[in-house]
Amino acid sequence: MAEKPEFPVVQGGGSLIIAWQIRDKKVLVVGGGEVAAGRILHCLNADARVTVVSPLARLNPEVAYRVAQGQVTHIDRNFQPSDLDDSSIAMVLVAVDDPAASTTIWKLCKERRIPANIADVPSECDFYFGSVHRDGPLQIMVSTNGKGPRLAAMIRRFIAKQLPSDAGRAIETIGQLRVKLRQIAPRQEDGPKRMAWMTKVSEAYSWDEMCDLSEEDMDNLLRYYPSGKVPSLDGLKGMRANPEVGQLDVFDGSFGFSVGA
Amino acid sequence: MAEKPEFPVVQGGGSLIIAWQIRDKKVLVVGGGEVAAGRILHCLNADARVTVVSPLARLNPEVAYRVAQGQVTHIDRNFQPSDLDDSSIAMVLVAVDDPAASTTIWKLCKERRIPANIADVPSECDFYFGSVHRDGPLQIMVSTNGKGPRLAAMIRRFIAKQLPSDAGRAIETIGQLRVKLRQIAPRQEDGPKRMAWMTKVSEAYSWDEMCDLSEEDMDNLLRYYPSGKVPSLDGLKGMRANPEVGQLDVFDGSFGFSVGA
Repeated sequence: MAEKPEFPVVQGGGSLIIAWQIRDKKVLVVGGGEVAAGRILHCLNADARVTVVSPLARLNPEVAYRVAQGQVTHIDRNFQPSDLDDSSIAMVLVAVDDPAASTTIWKLCKERRIPANIADVPSECDFYFGSVHRDGPLQIMVSTNGKGPRLAAMIRRFIAKQLPSDAGRAIETIGQLRVKLRQIAPRQEDGPKRMAWMTKVSEAYSWDEMCDLSEEDMDNLLRYYPSGKVPSLDGLKGMRANPEVGQLDVFDGSFGFSVGA
Repeated sequence: MAEKPEFPVVQGGGSLIIAWQIRDKKVLVVGGGEVAAGRILHCLNADARVTVVSPLARLNPEVAYRVAQGQVTHIDRNFQPSDLDDSSIAMVLVAVDDPAASTTIWKLCKERRIPANIADVPSECDFYFGSVHRDGPLQIMVSTNGKGPRLAAMIRRFIAKQLPSDAGRAIETIGQLRVKLRQIAPRQEDGPKRMAWMTKVSEAYSWDEMCDLSEEDMDNLLRYYPSGKVPSLDGLKGMRANPEVGQLDVFDGSFGFSVGA
């Protein structure tokens, strides 16, 4: 039994990377500088309700802009422990140049079991941030587990350059395939067949190939579902309607004549 | 003032993607099937102390293997509310085919403010998982924000193929640059100069270019720090010692002669 098992080998030293859901939840950001500005944007991109605690005079231009636009709620003073009395606060992000105050806030959060991140103090963080590429529904987060935020940003830029253009839109289109499949095979007992077919689809094409497929291609692909088969990429593209004769939902054999006429 | 500001525009609809720190923290996994196996691996890769609650007979081979290897603690029965009495539990992950039991566990977790994920029930999740590429210190997480886990895995595979080979090792090497820089410029007041130079480095080379650099190249690069300058990639490579004459720490002008001898 000393043989290597077929199961993945544990690679310690990483983080648990997760997509936290903070839509409509309250996030308290303490501080209003450049780091706070980045945190605030991350939270707004995830539809959180953000409150910033910081004297107005210390807000950087981006934070001041978001306050002025009403994108965040602003409390114009330094942090007070009573700021945590609101039991609906889901997360606290601290970015102030005051290690003693930061540690106090961290401890208060831990007493209340509120997830918190104290910028630049790894030992006072339930979680770290990474560098995130965003394109519509697609989010790609790069973490180097402490080897440097600049390095993470470089890798993020590298990845963004490799991605097919318009990747976000393509994901929406591909996502539609699942939705449409559920429409044509809605029954609970269809579940295993649906899953098996979707797996076959994901094995038949690479992702960048799928990005080239149009909504029409997706509809053509769905016609294969009853048979449980998946056409080759060329086969699928070959089903595209000839633009000269407009959309042909079903090839009825009259194609050559109508074009030739 | 109706002009477009220079600040990033908020793109709602995303998640807050974070690198959760669970080293040496207790994670309770309820269930022992295929989904649980994936969750357990994610947690072990982040050095968590994992307890699996599930009847032995229902463990899948991978989970049974990890139990047998002592990689996780096993409680051989169904979940009981008293499993949450341990106040040091940092996270709960549920993957059982029992919606009623799942909802009960979710509510118990929320009463106790324990972050939790109930597989396949988005409304009962503080966070979602994505598809993660791992290579040493590098972790890249792909989320399609609900457009399908298979799609996220496809994109993860696509990205993994684009990455320079041995990327993890390269990140270690590049990370060393920061460490060595701190050694040659350790003073607090050097901070701004260090940061400015590191920024210049990250702007001078792309990440895949940096992956081609050896430790020797990094040492050569560091010689430019006092001047605040950064050489071109070709310039840096040109400093490489001629292997025929061994390592040349400093070019002393005798290079041509020793080679020609």
